Amino acid sequence: MIGEILATGDELRSGSLIDSNSAYISQKLEESGLEVTRHSCVGDDLVNLKNIIKEIGGRADIAIITGGLGPTTDDLSAEAAALAAGDKLVIFEDALKTIESFFSRAGREMPASNKKQALLPKSAEVILNPVGTAPGFILKIGKCVFFFLPGVPFEMKKMLCDQVLVRIHKLLGNDRQYCLDKTISTFGLPESTVGEKVALVEKKFPGIKLGLRANFPEIQVKLYAKGASENGLMDLLNPAAKWVKEQLGKHIFSMDGYSLEVVIGQLLREQKASLGIAESCTGGLIANRITNVAGSSDYFMFSGVTYSNNAKIKVLGVLPATIEKFGAVAKETVKEMAKGVKDICNATYGLATTGIAGPSGGSPEKPVGTIWVGLAGPQKIITRQFNFSFGKRLMNKKIFASAALDLLRRELQGVLD
Amino acid sequence: MIGEILATGDELRSGSLIDSNSAYISQKLEESGLEVTRHSCVGDDLVNLKNIIKEIGGRADIAIITGGLGPTTDDLSAEAAALAAGDKLVIFEDALKTIESFFSRAGREMPASNKKQALLPKSAEVILNPVGTAPGFILKIGKCVFFFLPGVPFEMKKMLCDQVLVRIHKLLGNDRQYCLDKTISTFGLPESTVGEKVALVEKKFPGIKLGLRANFPEIQVKLYAKGASENGLMDLLNPAAKWVKEQLGKHIFSMDGYSLEVVIGQLLREQKASLGIAESCTGGLIANRITNVAGSSDYFMFSGVTYSNNAKIKVLGVLPATIEKFGAVAKETVKEMAKGVKDICNATYGLATTGIAGPSGGSPEKPVGTIWVGLAGPQKIITRQFNFSFGKRLMNKKIFASAALDLLRRELQGVLD
Repeated sequence: MIGEILATGDELRSGSLIDSNSAYISQKLEESGLEVTRHSCVGDDLVNLKNIIKEIGGRADIAIITGGLGPTTDDLSAEAAALAAGDKLVIFEDALKTIESFFSRAGREMPASNKKQALLPKSAEVILNPVGTAPGFILKIGKCVFFFLPGVPFEMKKMLCDQVLVRIHKLLGNDRQYCLDKTISTFGLPESTVGEKVALVEKKFPGIKLGLRANFPEIQVKLYAKGASENGLMDLLNPAAKWVKEQLGKHIFSMDGYSLEVVIGQLLREQKASLGIAESCTGGLIANRITNVAGSSDYFMFSGVTYSNNAKIKVLGVLPATIEKFGAVAKETVKEMAKGVKDICNATYGLATTGIAGPSGGSPEKPVGTIWVGLAGPQKIITRQFNFSFGKRLMNKKIFASAALDLLRRELQGVLD
Repeated sequence: MIGEILATGDELRSGSLIDSNSAYISQKLEESGLEVTRHSCVGDDLVNLKNIIKEIGGRADIAIITGGLGPTTDDLSAEAAALAAGDKLVIFEDALKTIESFFSRAGREMPASNKKQALLPKSAEVILNPVGTAPGFILKIGKCVFFFLPGVPFEMKKMLCDQVLVRIHKLLGNDRQYCLDKTISTFGLPESTVGEKVALVEKKFPGIKLGLRANFPEIQVKLYAKGASENGLMDLLNPAAKWVKEQLGKHIFSMDGYSLEVVIGQLLREQKASLGIAESCTGGLIANRITNVAGSSDYFMFSGVTYSNNAKIKVLGVLPATIEKFGAVAKETVKEMAKGVKDICNATYGLATTGIAGPSGGSPEKPVGTIWVGLAGPQKIITRQFNFSFGKRLMNKKIFASAALDLLRRELQGVLD
């Protein structure tokens, strides 16, 4: 069977909004064993909409259409579907009731314009929307079963996952496939190197599909196991994941796709340890990432974003002579920053960064992209210097923060180089 | 004339990558006066590629195709174009030389596989790629002039803007349009209210098109002026922008689309003022945003991300009795935080936040989403309480940070409520 996806709306067609729905839907359909051959996008134009629906009806077996189900005059999907199917529009009472109850739950009266959302092709089957006003519907046009869903990503995803996929699985019958995936997160190797190291996984483990995803500055290895039944997929996936783990070793920080800050939170919690941070070149980004994790106040005490030398001296207790002799970006300075913040917080670990994010401030000895990371632990203080050659300030900040967090992760896991 | 866009590649078709190229191209084409009626996406399949190219060749006058110009066997755009045009593939010597020189500039030898990238349809015209290996090309198929460009966004944008648009402008002739736009950034009003307040702009200023863009938690008003010549567009845009400014008043923080942190940086610099920050619930996000601006070390001194009460007391000098009596999330506490950090840094301004980002930690009196912002200035300390009802931790952190930055912006501009 062949699947297609159509996104509708002038904001997508004109490029003022990027269509992220179609990629999401494509993944879900392909995981179910439905081959998606084409995505399309047209604007809020009745003739263009009707024409492309008829085209798809002649090509595909299953199609998902998003958008155009709202209350305004440029929401034309139901009308276009009725035209393409040679059907007429009628009010669906159950859809109308759901819309009314949506407004009454929000304590508001339903505007008259919203009644239009219950006006659907007579031969359609309604898909009720539990989280918004726009009901979806199912309609056969040509040889294709069309699923019309709202364009709001949150509503579309909810309806697709809870109500639509199960129907598509039925339509697929014996073609239905099951998919299990695993995301392995790495830091410290370029994408090409990660790719080379795991390239053989598909050959070594038949039935496994490999995907690489760069989420700068981290690289994720995705493994997909597909089969005609759920049974055995885990047995297919696990040895492949184990092999990938052997290839990438210490560079892996999560076998479950978690972020560095989540992994660090788990480790600190397990080890009943706490953390203080002193940031210069990362400018608060490390603290921001650590505090993105709910419950981080259990182990995170304080970060001193000491941008000025004066703050390094006054808040962290760095010696003026150290900065004078070695500069702000130096091994000696980062050591004192790490030790200083650990002591202030009475924390198990003190993590510190000082470097040059750019675009200016570099020198031949310390070019933009240079960073010193210091980690004061219960026994000792370790330091590392890195030189990253990404020209851009925000990229430098990102990779600086990840380098510092990864040093802490490695220390906590006992896998330092 | 009618334009279409086709994105190619299995990573897009299967949904493992979101297509952002088509939206970018669509904007550029529409700005030039070419109406884009459809976007499509197909995978790396020769037959599907050839068929859709022929389809587009029958429908559109101008089309942009991205992707499939790389050196590997699944890069099929040139072959599909030749098939659709009934043409044969030949080596283009100038394209080959450009590829070779790309490698020699990088100090590497050209792999044999890259020669394939110079193998293009015989009747095509080459578009050289100054920043990558994949040359583009122009080919008429059916009634449509096709521009084939690489899928790497950076390369595509460079070639589109420098080489392709000028040719499209020529093809458009008298249909060529010019577009000037203006982005007005606001904070503090919901999107629907902003929309209502500026809804009449298109009616009041014929020739102006309105767009609203939510960049949570900020709302941008975009004004577009289009015309058959560049002359007069500014005269069209300026009075409309002035009118929008009157409608939205103090809620506007930039008439030029700048971020809050950039605007604040400019104001601090102009006023020769400096800034210290004390963050609890924002967890470093404010400092991170401030330090995303190059040169921020000129005015930004320090942020104390005081997550624990102990850090608030020890680093910022908040009185233990204040926290004991009023709690960490309180007017009295945020005042002492703001004053404390201002004094530590000897800064002109001390900006402080304390609140409950959630998901837990709320109470009936202080629910999740509650924040106190304090701003200690040269003369006085001001405080504000806000209650945001976004359930999510990361959304709360974002709107907390923007609320604090906007209070500082308003103080610096002298437009406090």
